[in-house]
Amino acid sequence: MPTFQTVRGMRDLLGKEAQTFTYIINEAQKVASLFGFKKVFTPHVESLELLSAKSGEEIRQRMFIFEDLGGRKVALRPEFTASIARLATTDLKTEPKPLKLFSLGTVYRYDEPQRGRYREFWQSNFELIGTNKPEADTEIILLTNKFIQTLNLQGYVFKIGHIGIIRGILSQEGIEEKTQNAILQRMDKKEYDLALKLVTSEKCRQTLQNLIDLKGKDWQDTLKQVNTLVSSYEMAKTATDNLLEILTLITFSCPNISLTVDPAFARGLEYYTGMIFEIYIPQLEIALGGGGRYDRLMETFGSESTPAVGCAHGIDRIAIALQTQNTVSNIGAEHNVMVIPITETVKGEALKIAQQLRERGVSVEFELMGRKMGKALEDADKRGLDYAVIVGKRELEENNIVLKDLKKREQIIIPLTELYEKIIK
Amino acid sequence: MPTFQTVRGMRDLLGKEAQTFTYIINEAQKVASLFGFKKVFTPHVESLELLSAKSGEEIRQRMFIFEDLGGRKVALRPEFTASIARLATTDLKTEPKPLKLFSLGTVYRYDEPQRGRYREFWQSNFELIGTNKPEADTEIILLTNKFIQTLNLQGYVFKIGHIGIIRGILSQEGIEEKTQNAILQRMDKKEYDLALKLVTSEKCRQTLQNLIDLKGKDWQDTLKQVNTLVSSYEMAKTATDNLLEILTLITFSCPNISLTVDPAFARGLEYYTGMIFEIYIPQLEIALGGGGRYDRLMETFGSESTPAVGCAHGIDRIAIALQTQNTVSNIGAEHNVMVIPITETVKGEALKIAQQLRERGVSVEFELMGRKMGKALEDADKRGLDYAVIVGKRELEENNIVLKDLKKREQIIIPLTELYEKIIK
Repeated sequence: MPTFQTVRGMRDLLGKEAQTFTYIINEAQKVASLFGFKKVFTPHVESLELLSAKSGEEIRQRMFIFEDLGGRKVALRPEFTASIARLATTDLKTEPKPLKLFSLGTVYRYDEPQRGRYREFWQSNFELIGTNKPEADTEIILLTNKFIQTLNLQGYVFKIGHIGIIRGILSQEGIEEKTQNAILQRMDKKEYDLALKLVTSEKCRQTLQNLIDLKGKDWQDTLKQVNTLVSSYEMAKTATDNLLEILTLITFSCPNISLTVDPAFARGLEYYTGMIFEIYIPQLEIALGGGGRYDRLMETFGSESTPAVGCAHGIDRIAIALQTQNTVSNIGAEHNVMVIPITETVKGEALKIAQQLRERGVSVEFELMGRKMGKALEDADKRGLDYAVIVGKRELEENNIVLKDLKKREQIIIPLTELYEKIIK
Repeated sequence: MPTFQTVRGMRDLLGKEAQTFTYIINEAQKVASLFGFKKVFTPHVESLELLSAKSGEEIRQRMFIFEDLGGRKVALRPEFTASIARLATTDLKTEPKPLKLFSLGTVYRYDEPQRGRYREFWQSNFELIGTNKPEADTEIILLTNKFIQTLNLQGYVFKIGHIGIIRGILSQEGIEEKTQNAILQRMDKKEYDLALKLVTSEKCRQTLQNLIDLKGKDWQDTLKQVNTLVSSYEMAKTATDNLLEILTLITFSCPNISLTVDPAFARGLEYYTGMIFEIYIPQLEIALGGGGRYDRLMETFGSESTPAVGCAHGIDRIAIALQTQNTVSNIGAEHNVMVIPITETVKGEALKIAQQLRERGVSVEFELMGRKMGKALEDADKRGLDYAVIVGKRELEENNIVLKDLKKREQIIIPLTELYEKIIK
């Protein structure tokens, strides 16, 4: 008989880890609701044509591609944005703008498995479609901030940039988009020397180098310096102004937010056109999430030009962050009760009592192994339960019940009618 | 430019339907918690070997099977039980029994699409592993009852049987398991004549026919008649006694439950060994969920003999049931607010006010299109929002704000400090 295991790169989530995921997912849902994003569910399986329309070759080579029984070329979604773009250009085409859509679930990439990287992983995804206003970019940052804050992660920092700064300079230098993408890819990997080799103009190279070197805690000061550096690049200046506007709105409405501006920041995906960001905690090198503005992506899906901004959060990574900061200990704590019938004859009565407690919202385990009292209590202890409700024939005849506090190791006989109050207080 | 669409048999869930799904999923989670079932997440992709170990040929022919980039034969899960069995026989093998595991997500079967049947569909799944006691069967029924009741579905009925009644008779007649499965499959499809043709003994055929004909509202009476009919079949009698014990516990602890007993009830899946059930509402012919006892399944996965009972609920079907009974109208209703800055200059202040409301749990939309007041209010109306918070420079200077009740079409100027109270009352 073989021992079965998960497929390489896929994993189970159990116990505390599953609780942590549930907790993060619920908080993401709450944030979506607070910011007025509507939940949509899209299929895990989409046509290869759709998923290829947006993704670069790099992601495409890492997709789970197959044929269904009808011979359709399909793949497991590597992210949500293609599905959302499909919706925005078809079923939701005529909905009033902006569209504010929230998705949550698993996505799939065939990467080499390592800590924080699985072939099936969980994302919460927010897309804000139909407006190019800086307050839209701001809301995306604010909701990410609210999400991470609610989860009680400590010391997190936003890294914010604007793809239009570098692209603006390169465009004005006459560098075509393909080369721009190559340069940005190298910058994204922090291979700055390789990136700069693709630039011919000495002035341009120097400007880029200065932007790369720009580091500072004070974003207002940083942006002033950027403004001076790009003063002769009209499009880069516009991008810088846009970033200034966004950052002003963010910091005014959320003064405690912690952020750094990185003018040479280039997020991998080629479709960004404006503000881009990622979020980090000090203990982890990988970003917990990120996003940005992509004003031209919808055209790829057959829509007229439609500005959009969005973000995705890595639930797996956030779970690691919570674990790293030891924030998971109180997740899933609730008052738990084990109901134990002393004898076979009172099983029905005991089940009835369990039902009554559940009706009032108490989490109830029922002794289901037919064990003797001692064994059953041992098990309740192992599971970390708070109370045992012991149902005996003699006590029942007097409408009483034995309530045992498993933490304090005390037990009392009380009227059945007082059971609920004793448990919840 | 092509118009993209979902892959055949897959669908998006949008708007009210997505809200309904979210609501059902949340209630399933609450029920799991009330009954002490622990959430586990297993991969959507499992090895073909694992998924084939349990599923009959019928399901196997309808699976989405493919190779990953490493040449592994894998498939999209057609249900949860194989993954749970994998867990129970590996990572959770040494956990104290009973294991009580809750899963929720999408499963995949390549069926002909029709109403209530999709190639990707949602299930909530409960497995109770390690006990053969009737109170375990009872808890599975009770939690399904609690789930459906909480959702406020009306007139639902449990159809309950016991596979051991028919199997007990057939075994005692010396009919081998393969033929038994063929007979049960035909009975499941209500092809009783075809089923009985596979039985040679006249006495046995008559007993089965009598069981098939047994219909009655009073389960106690029905069970008495079954008892008489199977009096010469020892194993069938044991099964009937087991069913009596389970039904006695169910009806004692939950007197209002509505159920019918069908002694010739045979659920499709071959692995059931004991009590089986399904749940229906009058308006739909398809079951909303079902389950039963499968005491020998774990052996298939290399475990020692481990009794188990479980159930799965079809979220898509429950959503149809809610829609059919028109129960969805009040799902997702909450107080919603749109914050609108009158001019560009107060955008930051307006965003700050939005943040403060969200901090206190209010769902806030922010005007993100830079529209004039009239257009913005029109949009808020279209979205069915309750209030517009209008932020103007003049009012702000006096720490005031304009609150417009969009339903009553009244607006008042109030101090900013009173905004939250006015909105939530």
